[in-house]
Amino acid sequence: MTQTLDRSAVPDGTPSALSVIDTDVHEMIGNPLEFLQYVEEPWRGRIHPDNWMGISIPYSWPTTGGLARPDARPTNGLRAGSDYQLMRTQHLDAFNIKHAVLTGLLYPSEFKVQPDFAVGLSQAYNRWVVNEWLAKDSRFLGSICVAAQRPDDAVAEIEKWASHPQMVQVLLPVISHDTMGRDYYHPIYEAAVRNNLVVGFHQGANVETAVGLPTYFLEWHTAISQAWQCQLISLVVHGVFEKFPDLRVVMIESSWTWLPHLMWRFDHNYRSLRREVPWVKRLPSEYIRDQVRFTTQPMEFAENPDHLYQMFEMVGNDEFLMFSSDYPHWDFDAPDRSLPSSFPPDIRRKVLHDNAAKFYQLGAAR
Amino acid sequence: MTQTLDRSAVPDGTPSALSVIDTDVHEMIGNPLEFLQYVEEPWRGRIHPDNWMGISIPYSWPTTGGLARPDARPTNGLRAGSDYQLMRTQHLDAFNIKHAVLTGLLYPSEFKVQPDFAVGLSQAYNRWVVNEWLAKDSRFLGSICVAAQRPDDAVAEIEKWASHPQMVQVLLPVISHDTMGRDYYHPIYEAAVRNNLVVGFHQGANVETAVGLPTYFLEWHTAISQAWQCQLISLVVHGVFEKFPDLRVVMIESSWTWLPHLMWRFDHNYRSLRREVPWVKRLPSEYIRDQVRFTTQPMEFAENPDHLYQMFEMVGNDEFLMFSSDYPHWDFDAPDRSLPSSFPPDIRRKVLHDNAAKFYQLGAAR
Repeated sequence: MTQTLDRSAVPDGTPSALSVIDTDVHEMIGNPLEFLQYVEEPWRGRIHPDNWMGISIPYSWPTTGGLARPDARPTNGLRAGSDYQLMRTQHLDAFNIKHAVLTGLLYPSEFKVQPDFAVGLSQAYNRWVVNEWLAKDSRFLGSICVAAQRPDDAVAEIEKWASHPQMVQVLLPVISHDTMGRDYYHPIYEAAVRNNLVVGFHQGANVETAVGLPTYFLEWHTAISQAWQCQLISLVVHGVFEKFPDLRVVMIESSWTWLPHLMWRFDHNYRSLRREVPWVKRLPSEYIRDQVRFTTQPMEFAENPDHLYQMFEMVGNDEFLMFSSDYPHWDFDAPDRSLPSSFPPDIRRKVLHDNAAKFYQLGAAR
Repeated sequence: MTQTLDRSAVPDGTPSALSVIDTDVHEMIGNPLEFLQYVEEPWRGRIHPDNWMGISIPYSWPTTGGLARPDARPTNGLRAGSDYQLMRTQHLDAFNIKHAVLTGLLYPSEFKVQPDFAVGLSQAYNRWVVNEWLAKDSRFLGSICVAAQRPDDAVAEIEKWASHPQMVQVLLPVISHDTMGRDYYHPIYEAAVRNNLVVGFHQGANVETAVGLPTYFLEWHTAISQAWQCQLISLVVHGVFEKFPDLRVVMIESSWTWLPHLMWRFDHNYRSLRREVPWVKRLPSEYIRDQVRFTTQPMEFAENPDHLYQMFEMVGNDEFLMFSSDYPHWDFDAPDRSLPSSFPPDIRRKVLHDNAAKFYQLGAAR
């Protein structure tokens, strides 16, 4: 058991007995041959070591375990996050996880080429996650994978799976080559609202920063939230929240301590520049507070823990933040260590459980 | 006189009698024919309405006065900021400006093509600003314009003008197509340090965000600080501050309320990932606190002014911020309105005067 999992170090006041909702758990494809069974032809035959080999980020990882916690790798040598039994023991049971929102790591929306292949992979992912994960544990909640570059197909995929009792959201990747507020994508938001699903945005593998892909992983990982910020700005400015007032969006793994800065600047600019976008009727911060949530991981740490709680209060809505672990990745945050001591118990409870229960509408039925 | 200049509305406690140092004033080229006299051949002949027509940003501006304050446009119809007499009356004298750091708006470093032309323009700018501006008013301080894509020429230009008593910094634009921490640019930082000059980074005209150029000006103007953040990260990660401990950098017009977020995230990532960059010896936030300054405009406004001062305190060094007006641009901040009431008088004095006096080493000689 690693330091990260040393529960003897639970800080005073942590509700360790509280059940936790984890909004970002990566269930991974272990054996590619098993996943290939879910891919239909003609796409199955196109996946081959001499051809397409899957998605990978452009950097080698400078951590000991690569992208993952070393202790999360199964004894069979396959990828961390691919073994349900290990995930159950090491994460769900160990931390009293009541619900874990599965976010996968296969995001065909980010493909710049061959959109039909992206559609085929999204369909395969959904069949796979339903059979291989959701069916195994009622604590799992699912994300519908779509290929956003083909909105009609994306809507069809949403309609196909929305009635599954464990499906709670549509997952889109944060990309750099397009802005997701554009009208082109509105049918996806409309379908999510119609089916009472959240729309989640998670980092894509090749997302860029304001200088493209910077030289080092440290640079990339420090600046990567910029793409979420741009997508959030785009959703507001293109009027998505105005058009779909019931749309619920969650920014997953975006971090959140940039949010006061962005809301202040956005509102200030809006007051001066709104004649450019007359379809945006309210202050940007109002849409964000009402319709957008954020997940905790990667949690930043201030030298003075009071500063982190001041930052939380600046957002102006104590429902905006929901716990996430990012299991099984290298920068995993444990529920009992995610928030510093400056966060009072009632806020800890909201972040670890209540905010996600309300936002994902996880009532008695779940 | 516009609302912006209504000095009867000075908040209580504002040191209106205090002399001010303004770290971002744009003196503009009014008559292109006048400027052409400073451009040498063969480049002078290449500037023509059928050919290169100058730098412009990619958006039309949705404000009444375009990029500028309508009242800052001279009666001769030329560009706002091009008339010294008007600038003196309307800004320097009106606000008791002791020193104004001129930042121009011609940044040949951002040219992706024809680097020799960029060098020629940078040389012309320096001759022009010395003759047409610095010579007219001892309150003006100058920025040496260079073409960073040609470091040898940039160093020569720095050496040429560094001894001018009003030259205080080397100006580089914030660009998106390269990261300024790279070894390639180190001779420029070395020359600045050798000549005791600050290195200033100001927005380039075509700087991009994490999604490239977003659809609307409102989006661009809300996300544009991302490029400064990337350049700052690049300077730290490539070891520029470690290699040049006497280097002083100022981020001009970058805004600053994103800084606590960035320092927290950067330090946290550095602790995990520093084996990737062993030449970076200290916490990123330490380099930033010691060697980097920020200017006030565009100041963000929080609904609760205490939040803005909390954000200031989170940075952990009350010398980090220096007043700037961005005269004559549309989002100009007046000295007496730049800081909210939550900033105590001693901090106001530091921001409006003392921090810049110390950082630019503006002693009795100036």
